Amino acid sequence: MSVAYLNGAYLPLADARISPLDRGFLFADGIYEVAAVIDGKLVDSASHLARLERSTSAIGIRLPLPLAEIEAVQKELVVRNGLSEGLVYLQVTRGADRTRDFIAPEGLAPTLFLFVQAKPFLDVPAVRDGIAVATMPDLRWARRDIKSVGLLAQAMAKQAARAAGAQEAWMVEDGFVTEGASSTAFILTDDGIVTRPYSQAVLAGCTGAALAALAEESGIAVVRRAFTVAEAMGAKEAFITSASTLCQSVVRIDGQTIGDGTPGPVAMRLRQLYIDFARKTAV
Amino acid sequence: MSVAYLNGAYLPLADARISPLDRGFLFADGIYEVAAVIDGKLVDSASHLARLERSTSAIGIRLPLPLAEIEAVQKELVVRNGLSEGLVYLQVTRGADRTRDFIAPEGLAPTLFLFVQAKPFLDVPAVRDGIAVATMPDLRWARRDIKSVGLLAQAMAKQAARAAGAQEAWMVEDGFVTEGASSTAFILTDDGIVTRPYSQAVLAGCTGAALAALAEESGIAVVRRAFTVAEAMGAKEAFITSASTLCQSVVRIDGQTIGDGTPGPVAMRLRQLYIDFARKTAV
Repeated sequence: MSVAYLNGAYLPLADARISPLDRGFLFADGIYEVAAVIDGKLVDSASHLARLERSTSAIGIRLPLPLAEIEAVQKELVVRNGLSEGLVYLQVTRGADRTRDFIAPEGLAPTLFLFVQAKPFLDVPAVRDGIAVATMPDLRWARRDIKSVGLLAQAMAKQAARAAGAQEAWMVEDGFVTEGASSTAFILTDDGIVTRPYSQAVLAGCTGAALAALAEESGIAVVRRAFTVAEAMGAKEAFITSASTLCQSVVRIDGQTIGDGTPGPVAMRLRQLYIDFARKTAV
Repeated sequence: MSVAYLNGAYLPLADARISPLDRGFLFADGIYEVAAVIDGKLVDSASHLARLERSTSAIGIRLPLPLAEIEAVQKELVVRNGLSEGLVYLQVTRGADRTRDFIAPEGLAPTLFLFVQAKPFLDVPAVRDGIAVATMPDLRWARRDIKSVGLLAQAMAKQAARAAGAQEAWMVEDGFVTEGASSTAFILTDDGIVTRPYSQAVLAGCTGAALAALAEESGIAVVRRAFTVAEAMGAKEAFITSASTLCQSVVRIDGQTIGDGTPGPVAMRLRQLYIDFARKTAV
């Protein structure tokens, strides 16, 4: 039985209940984070907590606990669930009013909800075989740097990608790839690994940022610029990063084979560097 | 004590509870409608129910009840709450999974939640004095024709408008007004009343559509084209329509007075035509 955390209490996930007047439910007025767990420890935790604070600040949601206490809840959930490999999901919303109004009243108590997912991701077919991505129009709002729970466009893109036989959607705007529906997009060119620069058009991926830093440390140049779908199709390698995939090779884009159709050596080397970093710095 | 409806049961609103695994909470994977109640009857109900069906169909959410039974629930809530003037809010989501995955499993039971708000709107200061609007960049996603609960951009715009001393935000994209954060935008020019044509860029407003039809019947031309902020500022009149405001004059845009700064005769005539229509056709 999975143990969750809701507003100060640990309880069975199946028993967790919130009011449908919660602004997370009525307005998608909330922020989330997903942290990986390896060997029973939180991966790259400081980076995720810093982004949580950036996102909540951007929309004026007050965190109900200091970041250190939020991390303590995450760790407690890992222990209580005996989680060795998987994810800790966290969502904070502006809270539940007594009625519905676009403008939130002052002094609402934020809602804080966390639960875990036991999910192997170190040794999975997607790593060994690589994944296929399908490109989709990027329908999302203009503030993708805020990790809000307004994820319907991403869910639609993922659903359409699966229907097209792919495991991830790459969102495309004005001919350029913005990012994956739930991951950061990279390609390998003669200049190094290429990924979109930070702006309001993309989420600043924690895993992607750490992996890019590791790449630079190991002598691989990181080029921050937008790339087109055509360029990605002709790239030497392509890959995605996220907390739940770490780093996975993209071997097909819209049915077109990338490189020789198997996971490329650079992506796999970076994945291993990231896993080493994750194990070394996990808390 | 307000009585709500949740998944087949009538219960006190304060006791209503859903799982935080509901996809409405995790992904904004849900649709809503707001219907006005006048004299204890639902206003323009068929139009709102038709739009509910369009929105849910667009994202593949199955309605848990036929439209006629949904309307029966709305009516029952009006009766149980003794509601004479106000709103019935309705939200349907794809339902709660046992975990979190962007791709919903087959066969989830949708969540259906309704409650009422007693709220006078026939004789309010905003009608007598008109309202101020503030223009805001339109940050929303690309499928605004789908009335999804992903409303964070709208909530942010309304909050910013209030901070600027306005009662509504007009969203602006590429120099043109798309619509209000929770209303349809109209201006009066020499050619008639002007409002944005239907497309994925705007929600097809039920109240605006009915009011436009009434305008045409009464000899006022309706021009469906986009208009700029500058054009609105120089218009003879400006007004908004929505289920919760019916029709209200806009007397200031970003601090600039429209016309003589009082509610214009055409908007007030259309408002009265709409109220007459609403009373005549309410169910």
